[in-house]
Amino acid sequence: MIKSWAEAAPRLVAVAAGREPADTVIRGGKLVNVQSREVLDGWQVAIAEGRFAYVGPDASHCIGPDTVVIEADGRYLIPGLCDAHMHIESGMLTPAEFARAVTPHGTTTMFTDPHEIANVMGLEGVRLMHDEALMQPVNIFTQMPSCAPSAPGLETTGFAISAEDVAEAMTWPGIIGLGEMMNFPGVVAGDAQMLAEIAATQMAGKTVGGHYASPDLGPAFHAYAAGGPADDHEGTCEADAIARVRQGMRSMMRLGSAWYDVESQITAVTEKGLDPRNFILCTDDSHSGTLVNEGHMNRVVRHAIACGAEPIVALQMATINTASHFGLERELGSIAPGRRADAILTSDLRSLPIEQVIARGVLVARDGDMLVDTPHLAWPDHARNTVHLGKALSAGDFEIAAPDGANTVTAKVIGVIENQAPTKALTADLQVEDGIVQPDAPGDVAQIALVERHRGTGGVTNGFVSGFGYSGKMAMASTVAHDSHHMIVVGTDRENMALAANRLGEVGGGITVFRNGEEIALVELPIAGLMSEEHAQVVARKAGRMVEAMAECGCTLNNAYMQHSLLALVVIPELRISDLGLVDVTKFEITDLFEET
Amino acid sequence: MIKSWAEAAPRLVAVAAGREPADTVIRGGKLVNVQSREVLDGWQVAIAEGRFAYVGPDASHCIGPDTVVIEADGRYLIPGLCDAHMHIESGMLTPAEFARAVTPHGTTTMFTDPHEIANVMGLEGVRLMHDEALMQPVNIFTQMPSCAPSAPGLETTGFAISAEDVAEAMTWPGIIGLGEMMNFPGVVAGDAQMLAEIAATQMAGKTVGGHYASPDLGPAFHAYAAGGPADDHEGTCEADAIARVRQGMRSMMRLGSAWYDVESQITAVTEKGLDPRNFILCTDDSHSGTLVNEGHMNRVVRHAIACGAEPIVALQMATINTASHFGLERELGSIAPGRRADAILTSDLRSLPIEQVIARGVLVARDGDMLVDTPHLAWPDHARNTVHLGKALSAGDFEIAAPDGANTVTAKVIGVIENQAPTKALTADLQVEDGIVQPDAPGDVAQIALVERHRGTGGVTNGFVSGFGYSGKMAMASTVAHDSHHMIVVGTDRENMALAANRLGEVGGGITVFRNGEEIALVELPIAGLMSEEHAQVVARKAGRMVEAMAECGCTLNNAYMQHSLLALVVIPELRISDLGLVDVTKFEITDLFEET
Repeated sequence: MIKSWAEAAPRLVAVAAGREPADTVIRGGKLVNVQSREVLDGWQVAIAEGRFAYVGPDASHCIGPDTVVIEADGRYLIPGLCDAHMHIESGMLTPAEFARAVTPHGTTTMFTDPHEIANVMGLEGVRLMHDEALMQPVNIFTQMPSCAPSAPGLETTGFAISAEDVAEAMTWPGIIGLGEMMNFPGVVAGDAQMLAEIAATQMAGKTVGGHYASPDLGPAFHAYAAGGPADDHEGTCEADAIARVRQGMRSMMRLGSAWYDVESQITAVTEKGLDPRNFILCTDDSHSGTLVNEGHMNRVVRHAIACGAEPIVALQMATINTASHFGLERELGSIAPGRRADAILTSDLRSLPIEQVIARGVLVARDGDMLVDTPHLAWPDHARNTVHLGKALSAGDFEIAAPDGANTVTAKVIGVIENQAPTKALTADLQVEDGIVQPDAPGDVAQIALVERHRGTGGVTNGFVSGFGYSGKMAMASTVAHDSHHMIVVGTDRENMALAANRLGEVGGGITVFRNGEEIALVELPIAGLMSEEHAQVVARKAGRMVEAMAECGCTLNNAYMQHSLLALVVIPELRISDLGLVDVTKFEITDLFEET
Repeated sequence: MIKSWAEAAPRLVAVAAGREPADTVIRGGKLVNVQSREVLDGWQVAIAEGRFAYVGPDASHCIGPDTVVIEADGRYLIPGLCDAHMHIESGMLTPAEFARAVTPHGTTTMFTDPHEIANVMGLEGVRLMHDEALMQPVNIFTQMPSCAPSAPGLETTGFAISAEDVAEAMTWPGIIGLGEMMNFPGVVAGDAQMLAEIAATQMAGKTVGGHYASPDLGPAFHAYAAGGPADDHEGTCEADAIARVRQGMRSMMRLGSAWYDVESQITAVTEKGLDPRNFILCTDDSHSGTLVNEGHMNRVVRHAIACGAEPIVALQMATINTASHFGLERELGSIAPGRRADAILTSDLRSLPIEQVIARGVLVARDGDMLVDTPHLAWPDHARNTVHLGKALSAGDFEIAAPDGANTVTAKVIGVIENQAPTKALTADLQVEDGIVQPDAPGDVAQIALVERHRGTGGVTNGFVSGFGYSGKMAMASTVAHDSHHMIVVGTDRENMALAANRLGEVGGGITVFRNGEEIALVELPIAGLMSEEHAQVVARKAGRMVEAMAECGCTLNNAYMQHSLLALVVIPELRISDLGLVDVTKFEITDLFEET
């Protein structure tokens, strides 16, 4: 671990005063000062103990015989980039491998909410993520997940998070605040547990993350703000961004793999002229393919600049604004004495090529290549063994019995929408054979099953889904199944569904696609059934193959894996499935599979 | 005490949602939003539990039968003003009476460093100030004094402050950080105690106040910044302000009774275009007369606007910027949900008349009149009995023996400079009568004595002072005697000097002027010899009379009381007096009274 400023101060003072040599000096560049909002040509920095000791026009008095001198060669020296809100699990990578993937993109600080593993492993899972996070050469702060389950009464998670868990986590060294408070109706209604979690966070002097996913900016929104969340990343339009800032919340604008909320909101600054200090950039969710092919926070900053933000203002939104929000403005987020020496050398402030990355004073990446190790935690066996099916599943487990004597039924069907998270509540008339309702591949009605995998109950909830366009005999299964992360199996054929489900039981979780009884794609995610310890490149390749396999099975949608993994997300309308049954998310209640006749 | 946001949240949420009525609603005004940097016409606020519950376009759903409705009548609603750095003792008032004086000027939050009482009463004195501060209807946060004595080895304080004291104080509820780290040479040199005090503050997650009183912006300045101080109010020119902000420090620009550092520095924002977020306004020192006749933070904000700052930007510098600096941005400093309901109604954003002041949701002042009580602490007897002379002084105690056999001597003389804190080191040839060196009133050389008053040692250090222009037989004594606050007696006549000194022993401290054996002015300051419990108006009147009395004694300088009280300030050049002797502050050493012959 890096020494605290207090511990490092004697050395920092001695270096700045010229009494002791620095570990590293960077000179010959143009320093981007996000505190003053200036570019300071020729400014130099001296680094000691992983922190900036001297930042000024001439660091030559800090150079000794063993000081490493980095020549900036006229490039800009900017602070390392901060991702203000994100979920590491979305990359299907462990914290170590996520750090390895994003550091060469210039991300040196992340604020991550391990909400997914909390649903599978509870507080212990959060602690494991937290512990691996603290082992990394870059800064990964943990936001304690606030809402597991997301929808109490509508699903059963592996573990639940309590207000006591939150209070305990606030004492851990790497916890920076409360993860997104998704239960916004609960806050608005004055739910005691939600307010207790917020209170525990506030009492600890930490930051309460928000998540207000509603277009309603009336009293409910104001009540949510009064409850204590300090930021929100769910805004999607300029009015959302402005409304949040006017309430003294920070507007976090996200560009994730599937979120495009910067362009529509940043006009609050670029056109409406609001004070930029309360606007922050983040990713929320990045798939490994995005990390490998497009970037991370560098992609977001570039995009913000392309949307009209001044480059230094956009950089502030990914550095000092973020640090200030989390109470870390004297710890990181700017190139100033005492702060962690996290910086990037780039030759252009608009296209933002990430040429060298320095984290805690160490050159950690150059020209896209990672130069240092990202240590892996020794994950305990039970973290690698979280898929508990209770029994080998067979085709019979996926049979849906028709009402007595029916030849056809009118069934409720989850309708998938391309590129969107919400679903439609559809119906379909389906044939009954031998008392069993049959899917209708030509009519694009497949079966869906939610397979309980936390407690080995053997429970299978069956239903129907439409929109993927699958044909032939196939099945696809995933243990990434937001938010409670049981297993979602979608298929046109019950034999293949059983094969796919059992396969994930075998490999400890992940995603698999079966066709005609053969596995044609597999992404192993053995850590909690959510994450791989392989490199992002490997995971991205396997995930790419998985998407191809979906297409080979007839899927006509643009990368519909996201839709697959969200079919159990019982907080977003209209129709979902959970271990407790089919869920009408317009009414937040369990509903019958068949229409009443 | 006001409930914390966490404690108040259930009610705040209920009010914002419209389920419970607010205590107070303010409507019909224009809300100045310092978060977004906008004026929001027609916006309303609802207040409950002393905090803002709802801030938005229409609070009518928050109004119940018992809700107090304040009609803003088209005026601006601005956040209550914050004074980022100040010393209450400079007003010669207790915290209660200081609060009473400044609240009608719109100051609802103060960050005060009780450095003076720390020199007299040590940690206990700080605690007493802290305790009275917490009793007030406005917010007074205490900065733990860092440097008592200011000049170790050159003076003896009543008590000293240790790093352990600092660590203890950090656990008190009203301590917000470390008071100005005046020992900047110590920080630059790596002094272990100074760095330990800073470390204790940083470990507590609190703010380290700075004080870098030097024009040198080279390596020493950078080393000071590397030591940890987070702000500085000692800048006097634009380059100072810019230099501090570039180091990630906040530039505090002060307009006190005798400080005029805003106009010369605010051009960093108004002309150079630096990001305003790191610029903050403060007073540092305000005399009671200034408070009574001119104002407090309203005077500073008005002045900043007159110097060219946009009104909302100037307001940010006295509200949200200050709150953010001290980690209180979610507690106060803006009109937003959850924050303390501290606000001002004003009909003009430039002239800034303070028409109504609301603190913690209560109307506390209107049109300059205080409407609520400011409770007094029951100060213990020993806090009212801090002038320990050890004996009745007589004229003989002020006799200065000449070297054996001398008829005249060349003496070092402290030269007072009008309107300035530094002194000049002068010399004068003085007559000797009966072995005793005589002052020279016609030559404007009076006697000065530093009378030990903390331990009753009976010690008197005698010397000479020039510049006041005193004539006739007079003496003036003060127990306000920065920084160690013994007693400074200046006079043309030793009998009068003894009378004045004994008089302050009698009344427990303050300021007195004697002429021809009669007291012609008295300001009683019985609390630690520094503060009065009378109203500011009374103290200002007595202080005014004291200045008149100085003039009656021949003083030709503009209000030279400040110069009198600073004659023992052994950290500012060139020549001073302390209980240990005459001090050459160009060399930081004790020096002989007589020139070597």
